[in-house]
Amino acid sequence: MSIQYILEIVGTFAFAISGALAVKDQKHQDWFGASFTAFISSIGGGTIRDILLDSYPLVWIRDITIIYAIMAGILVTFVFYKYLIGLRRTLFFFDTWGIALFTIVGTEKALNLGVRPEIAAIMGVFSAVMGGVIRDMMTNEIPIIYRKEVYATACLAGACCYLLLDRFGAERNVAFISSSILIIVIRILAVRYQWSVPRFFR
Amino acid sequence: MSIQYILEIVGTFAFAISGALAVKDQKHQDWFGASFTAFISSIGGGTIRDILLDSYPLVWIRDITIIYAIMAGILVTFVFYKYLIGLRRTLFFFDTWGIALFTIVGTEKALNLGVRPEIAAIMGVFSAVMGGVIRDMMTNEIPIIYRKEVYATACLAGACCYLLLDRFGAERNVAFISSSILIIVIRILAVRYQWSVPRFFR
Amino acid sequence: MSIQYILEIVGTFAFAISGALAVKDQKHQDWFGASFTAFISSIGGGTIRDILLDSYPLVWIRDITIIYAIMAGILVTFVFYKYLIGLRRTLFFFDTWGIALFTIVGTEKALNLGVRPEIAAIMGVFSAVMGGVIRDMMTNEIPIIYRKEVYATACLAGACCYLLLDRFGAERNVAFISSSILIIVIRILAVRYQWSVPRFFR
Repeated sequence: MSIQYILEIVGTFAFAISGALAVKDQKHQDWFGASFTAFISSIGGGTIRDILLDSYPLVWIRDITIIYAIMAGILVTFVFYKYLIGLRRTLFFFDTWGIALFTIVGTEKALNLGVRPEIAAIMGVFSAVMGGVIRDMMTNEIPIIYRKEVYATACLAGACCYLLLDRFGAERNVAFISSSILIIVIRILAVRYQWSVPRFFR
Repeated sequence: MSIQYILEIVGTFAFAISGALAVKDQKHQDWFGASFTAFISSIGGGTIRDILLDSYPLVWIRDITIIYAIMAGILVTFVFYKYLIGLRRTLFFFDTWGIALFTIVGTEKALNLGVRPEIAAIMGVFSAVMGGVIRDMMTNEIPIIYRKEVYATACLAGACCYLLLDRFGAERNVAFISSSILIIVIRILAVRYQWSVPRFFR
Repeated sequence: MSIQYILEIVGTFAFAISGALAVKDQKHQDWFGASFTAFISSIGGGTIRDILLDSYPLVWIRDITIIYAIMAGILVTFVFYKYLIGLRRTLFFFDTWGIALFTIVGTEKALNLGVRPEIAAIMGVFSAVMGGVIRDMMTNEIPIIYRKEVYATACLAGACCYLLLDRFGAERNVAFISSSILIIVIRILAVRYQWSVPRFFR
């Protein structure tokens, strides 16, 4: 069991918690709806990536551990949500860290399947953000990508960083870790200094 | 032509009717929008299940009868909708019965494709509810899974019942029929006594 | 490089422009959101068609020119959007023309994959409208198919025209061009004379 696998399971667990907490502001919050949302948030991005790349079986169908990590995230949210809401900073850190991990894992997976780097970058970003996009479409929220936060842009920067390092022969772990850190740093700085992506229509 | 096949075609027909009727409360109700909604409601759940399981060709692409059953449902709604609205109870029964059927057929199909029982249960629920979820996303409704009705929970209970009976060696038809009936009974009781799924955030 | 290929690239470019311009009325309009929307609008329909038909690799994954055509459309919108807004008629013509092209290309592709004509017609319409449907779902708009314009109906008429001509042995280019023109003419007449599709519920 590699370190990366453990990180992925923990990232899935963290995504499930933030997915379940997202139902908090909805009108109807039964446990099924919350679980469904947590589930879609966690696996949506990777699922869309794998369907687009025709890479079967899907990760969560092949490896049941992912399903149990999500269920654990839902259960933890259910039992401890009053404490979790007080831990916004910790949650934000885990969420950011999960996003960074998913972006680079997705980029790498696409690259290994033989697609061009431009496509690999798109797949990396999709892996990280599409779960949230589907969740927001279902809950009638304005999708996360239309909100002010520098979110998807950080993922794109990280994916490009990974692809460049890979192109210029950097050792795989070096490329992996440094591009993940880039995503985390950009997002933390963006929230800290309230960066926002330039408007498209001036 | 098996009894189950006939039941599936009738279930599809019933789903198309409830899909087309769902457009009634929308502002714009041209025949194309209504047909499109009926179509997505009927085949959406099974299509998502088959894409996730990489099971091709899709059922409605292989068997054109399904398309004609949907068209018949749309036509019947178009001609008789004033009577249909007065038949809410009958429609509710057909819809419930279609959902029960789709859940168990979906669970069984996934199981036969060799996935684990946990995944088969998820696929069974997806088969029954995802058509409605997509329909609600398109019509800007709050998705059915976030509404009070015990809907998806009934499907999940039925799928688990089927998997347990299958595990303990029950005859296939016995498992099929008793778990379908469980879904129908739960949903009817839920509407009758206004059950609701416990809130996730107390 | 065939004429049809060039037309497809130009159609993708035009779709990207109308996709990016659609973000104009949104609250949050950062460049990432606009690019994401342009991207989904352009490739969404064809992607859904190819996933449903299990036709891999997806066109835009195999042919990177499509990605660059979309990027060019986004860039042109970014730089020239003030002029583009004044060119509503020109844009409408390009959009209509892209829709016509995508419908017939989609119908033909499905037919060549061996599905029945009814399914091919559905795939043709999906190719043309699903990109817009997903875009509208993401931006919380009422999906284009529920709006008054005779839009999807024109595509359906064109697809059926193509299938009939193909059935009765018309030369392929004749069938292609005349059914595309049918779509363009219906849509232009519909906007000019404010046609609308009959209401489903009278």
